[in-house]
Amino acid sequence: MRGTIPAVGIRDRLPRRVTIVEVSPRDGLQAEERILPTETKIALIERLADAGHTVIETTSFVSPKAVPQLADADELFKRLRQRPGVRYPVLVPNERGLERAMAAGATEIAILASASESYSRKNLGRSRAEAMEMLRPVARRAKDQGMRMRAYLSMAFADPWDGPTPLDVAVDAGRALLDLGADELSIGDTIGAATPGKVQDLVDAYLASGVSADRLAVHFHDTYGQGLANVLAAMELGVSVVDASAGGLGGSPYARGAAGNLATEDLVWMLEGLGIRTGIDVRALAATAVWICGELGRETPGRAARALAAPPA
Amino acid sequence: MRGTIPAVGIRDRLPRRVTIVEVSPRDGLQAEERILPTETKIALIERLADAGHTVIETTSFVSPKAVPQLADADELFKRLRQRPGVRYPVLVPNERGLERAMAAGATEIAILASASESYSRKNLGRSRAEAMEMLRPVARRAKDQGMRMRAYLSMAFADPWDGPTPLDVAVDAGRALLDLGADELSIGDTIGAATPGKVQDLVDAYLASGVSADRLAVHFHDTYGQGLANVLAAMELGVSVVDASAGGLGGSPYARGAAGNLATEDLVWMLEGLGIRTGIDVRALAATAVWICGELGRETPGRAARALAAPPA
Repeated sequence: MRGTIPAVGIRDRLPRRVTIVEVSPRDGLQAEERILPTETKIALIERLADAGHTVIETTSFVSPKAVPQLADADELFKRLRQRPGVRYPVLVPNERGLERAMAAGATEIAILASASESYSRKNLGRSRAEAMEMLRPVARRAKDQGMRMRAYLSMAFADPWDGPTPLDVAVDAGRALLDLGADELSIGDTIGAATPGKVQDLVDAYLASGVSADRLAVHFHDTYGQGLANVLAAMELGVSVVDASAGGLGGSPYARGAAGNLATEDLVWMLEGLGIRTGIDVRALAATAVWICGELGRETPGRAARALAAPPA
Repeated sequence: MRGTIPAVGIRDRLPRRVTIVEVSPRDGLQAEERILPTETKIALIERLADAGHTVIETTSFVSPKAVPQLADADELFKRLRQRPGVRYPVLVPNERGLERAMAAGATEIAILASASESYSRKNLGRSRAEAMEMLRPVARRAKDQGMRMRAYLSMAFADPWDGPTPLDVAVDAGRALLDLGADELSIGDTIGAATPGKVQDLVDAYLASGVSADRLAVHFHDTYGQGLANVLAAMELGVSVVDASAGGLGGSPYARGAAGNLATEDLVWMLEGLGIRTGIDVRALAATAVWICGELGRETPGRAARALAAPPA
């Protein structure tokens, strides 16, 4: 060839390794109407681990009334055979949830708060300040028990009622979660409104506030198709933990349109193409995505999953 | 806020202005089974111009047998009221097509060649060398007439039969089209296989070979969901012309999976979010995308279009 590869391209700015947090069993399923049997959920988790996933968010110990799909959290987690080398975080909304999670044998939890006031009140049923006070004893007990803890910050970029989330509000809310003892903060674009420049603004604001990139994760929704481009922008600033959902399952019931989480297969396709190893077999993952969407009686939203599962041309 | 926006983020490396080449009336429709009336196609073009598009690829003067959907090219183009400030390129495959395009009043054409041998033989019915010889008199006549001419290079990254396209092969094939007199080369990822690092490799190879960024355009398909991330990667190297299709319509019949072109609304959403003005009203465009997909009797593949057209939550 005539040219040579230049010294600084996108790849030179990206992390060498990316950890994918697979959220389909919890975030992906929670809003689905068709209630799956516990054994199907366990089969999903097993297939994800077979495909090479090392972090699988397994379920949520919320009230069964609030999220009927995850009412089997206790039974599911007890029946799960945990594999060495795979982490199985579970979402806990409050102390009662933490107790259930510990009784079921969980060793890693996730907590969640909203950067916006309206979403906090409508989705979590309390103000941001009240939510933080409720989480404080949860976090303390979890850390006392030596549990790993990640934290989700919802509506970090915008909220359907409050509009764009100011940078300082998002940074303060996320730092408050880290100050509770969270090992990692997942910056959540719950309604999929972010674009790559906004992503860099917020990640930069965290970095400028003293939070290091290795404590940050990103969690994008594909409502407007921006998920992968946003991941690329975040990775350019050193973020190396990315949440995604097999088949693109999930999506906030509060978001307009039907789009869900960033599809894990699309993400793996990009990372492997960039020479960043994920350890995940994209074809096995795509087959799993198509299978679970079949169990849910719906089409697979993820693009790579559909393409890889299609019969040869 | 605590931090300050750093001196160099993605936005600092991006072009200030991006021209979108809207390809839905040609590339978007050509493989659709339901044949649309000419008046519906004209309504589509008018609505795209109403939404703010300034470059609309209108039709193709191919053989009606090869592409039944575009058999009305002559009538359509004659009936079209061309607006000042809007360009209406048409695809011409050969001299006969050029004659028809000129008779219909076209002032800008697009020609097409394949970077891979197999696609050239299977899709264009001749070898790459033969295809280039066939295009030579077309290009000469078009330039003699003072027509603007863009060129598409298909399979610039990979081909379903031949596998990855070597960089030097893609660069040589694209330069041959520019040497024919093309004002602009659209680098086409016909099967959607590219990822951002590969995009930068190829754009860099063109730049290293002496082709300036302002003569390059990119044309991505969303088979594996990579379209927008690839655009971002290309823009980082100075590419400022991007092909896209309203609603994500289109898609090579030779690609696995059902994914089509990059959806224009997703692209506009990203660009506007990055502070790059497109002049396009994304909501008017989304409504047009949903409308034309309804005329075709199919779901709208584009994500932003679906989200923007959904009823409020």
